[in-house]
This record gives sequence, C-alpha cells and structure tokens, in this order.
Amino acid sequence: MEALEIIQKEEGLEGVTLNKSHISPPKEDDVIVQMKACPINVADLAILSGHYGLALSFPKALGNEGAGTVVAKGALVKSLEIGDQVIMIKGLGSWATYLKKKEEAFIKVPNFFPESLACFTRSALMTAFRLLQDFQKENSLKTVIQNASNGAVGLSVIALAKAKGIKTINIIRNPSQKEELIQRGADYVLLEDAIFQNKFDLGEIPNADLALDAIGGPYADLFAEKLTQNGVIVSYGSLSKKPIEIKSRALIYKNITLKGFWVTKWLESLSKDEASKSFSELFSTLKDSSFEIPIDRAYPLKDFKEALAHAKRGSRKGKIIFNP
Amino acid sequence: MEALEIIQKEEGLEGVTLNKSHISPPKEDDVIVQMKACPINVADLAILSGHYGLALSFPKALGNEGAGTVVAKGALVKSLEIGDQVIMIKGLGSWATYLKKKEEAFIKVPNFFPESLACFTRSALMTAFRLLQDFQKENSLKTVIQNASNGAVGLSVIALAKAKGIKTINIIRNPSQKEELIQRGADYVLLEDAIFQNKFDLGEIPNADLALDAIGGPYADLFAEKLTQNGVIVSYGSLSKKPIEIKSRALIYKNITLKGFWVTKWLESLSKDEASKSFSELFSTLKDSSFEIPIDRAYPLKDFKEALAHAKRGSRKGKIIFNP
Repeated sequence: MEALEIIQKEEGLEGVTLNKSHISPPKEDDVIVQMKACPINVADLAILSGHYGLALSFPKALGNEGAGTVVAKGALVKSLEIGDQVIMIKGLGSWATYLKKKEEAFIKVPNFFPESLACFTRSALMTAFRLLQDFQKENSLKTVIQNASNGAVGLSVIALAKAKGIKTINIIRNPSQKEELIQRGADYVLLEDAIFQNKFDLGEIPNADLALDAIGGPYADLFAEKLTQNGVIVSYGSLSKKPIEIKSRALIYKNITLKGFWVTKWLESLSKDEASKSFSELFSTLKDSSFEIPIDRAYPLKDFKEALAHAKRGSRKGKIIFNP
Repeated sequence: MEALEIIQKEEGLEGVTLNKSHISPPKEDDVIVQMKACPINVADLAILSGHYGLALSFPKALGNEGAGTVVAKGALVKSLEIGDQVIMIKGLGSWATYLKKKEEAFIKVPNFFPESLACFTRSALMTAFRLLQDFQKENSLKTVIQNASNGAVGLSVIALAKAKGIKTINIIRNPSQKEELIQRGADYVLLEDAIFQNKFDLGEIPNADLALDAIGGPYADLFAEKLTQNGVIVSYGSLSKKPIEIKSRALIYKNITLKGFWVTKWLESLSKDEASKSFSELFSTLKDSSFEIPIDRAYPLKDFKEALAHAKRGSRKGKIIFNP
C-alpha cells in the first residue's frame, strides 16, 4: 500500500516535503488508518520551528493529531475494528493519507462525533477537558476565566463548562466575535483592551476559581485580581511569546498557584485503558451538544506550504486542517 | 502596670509614636509577657507603608514578632508558667515593654534557644522550615536553590537544610559573604551577576527540586532552568518589587509549579496544638546546631525612628531589633 505523508528533513519550512512511502500489511498489533481530517496546531508550528518541548530527530513525520478510518489491522488488535472512526492519540505523523501504527496509538471515536470535530479531540478538546477537570479542588469549580476564548481550546472550554454547569468569563480581542461566543453559551464576554484599561469594573462579574492562560505576558497578573483566594492559573500556551508576569503578592497574600498543562505529556503518562476512559468521559460530556470548532479552510496534503502559511496567520476565521 | 508600646495612628512613619498604656492584671486566659527582643521585619515595613496583605485599621500596635518572659497569667492558663521564655505567634503589638494577650498568642520556647534567636522563630525560621517541609513531594527533597541567601530566611534555610541532609545552592550579591555562607554549611554559593551572565555553566552543580524566591523579577525563569521536571518555585518575598517573570514553556513543558508562602496566613490556619507541634519540630531540628541570625544593632523602643530608618537600609550586617 502506498501512502503520502508530510515529513520534515531539517529545521524550518524549507525542510518540509511530501514523501511517498510503502506501507506493508499490518502485523500483530498494527493498525492501518486512512486519515480524513488532520488539524494544523500551534504545537505543529512549534515542532516545525524547533521550539517544541521534546527533542525530535530528523527526518520526522509531521502532524500531532487527526481523525480517520481503520482500513486494516493485525490479528492481535482487540479494541478496534475495520471501519471504526479513530483518532491518533500518541506520537507524530498524522499528516498522511494512510498511517500504520500500533493499536495503542489510536482510540475509537463514537459516530455522533463528526470527523470535523473528532480531529480536534486529542489536543483542543482534551486540553479543555483536563483544564476544567484537573485543577479544581473537590469538584468545587464554579467559575472559570480565560483568554483566547475564540481559539479551539477556548471554544471547547465554553462548551464543556456549559455542559458541566460551570460559568465562563471569556476575554477576546475582537468585538465582532462577542455575539458568537454568547450564542455558544459563554456567560460573560469581555474585551481585552477594556479589561486592561478598566480592570474588572465592568458590571457584575463573579470571581473565578480558575484562570486559563493561552497568551502569557501580563495576563496572569490580571487574572490574579479576579481570582478567589487559593485560585489557580494554568498556562497552556504562549501566543504572545512573552514571559508570564505575576506579582509576588498575588502568590503570597492570595495563595494563587501558577501551573502549566501539556496534553502530550499527560497522554504519555497514561495506559491505553486510562486514555480510553478519559476520552469516553469527554465524548459523553458533549454527546448532546451541537458543538463544533470552526474550520477556516481544508487543504489537500500537496498544498502543505500554503496550508502552513495560512495556519501561521493570526487573522483566521477558524482552524486550518488537512483533508488527506 | 504601665507599658510602653510603639503604635501607628495613621499611614507612614509620621504616624508612628511611642504610647504609654496601662495594663490591668491578667484575667482567665490572659498572659502578660515582658518583651526582650523584637525584630523589625520586611512585613513590619510593609504594614507601616500600607502595602501589607491584611487590611489593618488605625490606631494599631506594631511589631509582628518578638521574644520575652511570662511575668503574670490568668487562672485558666495551662500551657505557660511565670518565668517561661515565649514568643508571640499571633496578632500584632510585639514592640512593647509589656504585652497582654490571650494564651493562644504565645508559645513556649526551650531555653537552648537564646532570646536573640527565639525572637526570629515565628517569621524567618518558621518560614524557612515550612518552605523546606511543605513544598516537596513524598520527603524526596534532595537539593534546594535560593536567592537572598544571606537574609534571615536564607540563613535559616541553610541551617535547617544542613540538619535535614538537604543540599543548598545559594545565590548572593556580595562576594565577601561567600566564605561565611560556606562556614554556615552552604553546599554551593554562586554570585548573582555570574549566574545571570553565564547561567549555570559554573562547574558541577546538581539540579534542584525546589527553588525559593525572595526577590522576584527574572529569578523564577532562572530557577526554572536549574529545576528538575515537576520542580516547584515558591515566592516568599519581593525584595526587587518587580513582578515575577517566568516563561510559559517552563510551566508547560517542564511542569514547573509557582506558588507563594505567607507564614502569617499559615499560622492563622492552625490550632494552638498544631502550632505547638510545628514549633516543637522546628526547635528539635536545630537543637544541636549553633545556628544564629546576625544582629546589626539593637535599639531601645524610644529610638524607634532611627531603628526603622536603619532597618530600611539595604546595606546592613544583620537584622535590626528592639530590646524593649
């Protein structure tokens, strides 16, 4: 079986190429998946530029996540059947027409999750799910505040919080997105400029127990003002590329904790069973939701240079994905 | 009984005055203590300038801590006897010749702790003790890195770590203090300028599990480089008055946690029994140590203006205390 895959031979965009490879039939616990939808994430751009948290050697297959269909499997594979919709949850290489990996690299996704949402499950949706789940004390999370609220994680936080009965305070840059976020279930939507100018003197907004920071820079200090005593700030991205700033007094007097979350590291720490359980919880939380993540444009693999350039631009109307 | 006490009638140094008050005989669980040694701490200066973590009303008696001797007690007092050496562990007002408070405000200090060390127990020593005790996982703390290593907390950390078999990496500004810190048991002593220029390319220094930050600014980011995976940074002061800076990648990829510690809040959360137990552990850890905290000068209460001005100066050879 022949497959096309996007690989990187050396650092930078120039090192990226479309590779034709031969895939031999699956042995033992191998699974072959025909990939259908594969996002370009911030993590992929970090890998491309060499600023990722893991040291990776060349050549490397690119793509952190993606959804597809099982087309062949080895005799020992138990958890998956041919025809199942799956996502890749471990390793790299999702930007491919066909992908052969060990069974444990894939997880089955129920059919009520369309391909166009399934492909965001591993990173954006699971990050949002863990952020809401793992940083609260004794299931007491009432209100969360976040920035980059119209990003894929931000939108997932709004949907998951809504399903769990948690209020969201959402900060955005562009006023034109306010209405959409309200329709998606956001409880409060605030504009970044107004917040940094007037702090939170903007009407009756509750204090938050948890703050989610995808931007960095002065946000942590701003969040600290709106957090309750013992509140937690979690950093899961650094869109501004600026160091996080926070006053000592917030940590000392208000007992704020600042932590980080990285879904890839979290997934590596899990057994296949633990991962299955966690994804099942995520799927069932959104079962009755009509949640979707907007896609600005889908590209075929061969147009990867245009796709990557598009993904790097800030002013998109949604995610960029490959439809291999 | 007449007592002199330093009180503050309004914000700032101008509002500070020496007050003569009448102390009536102790009732029920009251204890009267003749104060002998009372430090001027950073927290006291923060209270004076209105930048403290608790809102305090005027007039207020000043002084966060101090050691003295019980001279009278009410009939219901069980834990203390006349003649006992005690320290004040709750509330304000230690800068006084005589101090009447409820029994729970004082704790007995064994006689092997001289008055000149006992007076630093509540803040510097207990802060150092908790920093080493409360932010490690499963008693696995091997190495701690700290700045302001020649401060009262820093010296206490060196002494307590030595007693517990924990290695210390100590950062100081002034090369002339290096030899003293080595004699006090510091394992590694590094100069701030060299560290910020050359990072840690300074010979064989182990990685640390815990970092203690009294200064703020860019230190957290520096510490993050020297911390092991899942390491913790605790802020307990902000001598630079600059916000803490830390890169998101340290939090996300290295799973570093940033927290704060405030001994006053911690003490408030404890019952008298819990506090006694904790102080007993601290005393016994240092029983066979010849540890002392250097005192630059002791002042009588009446010279409080000179004493406070002296305490504010950076270039001291030790702590400033009152000998009421």
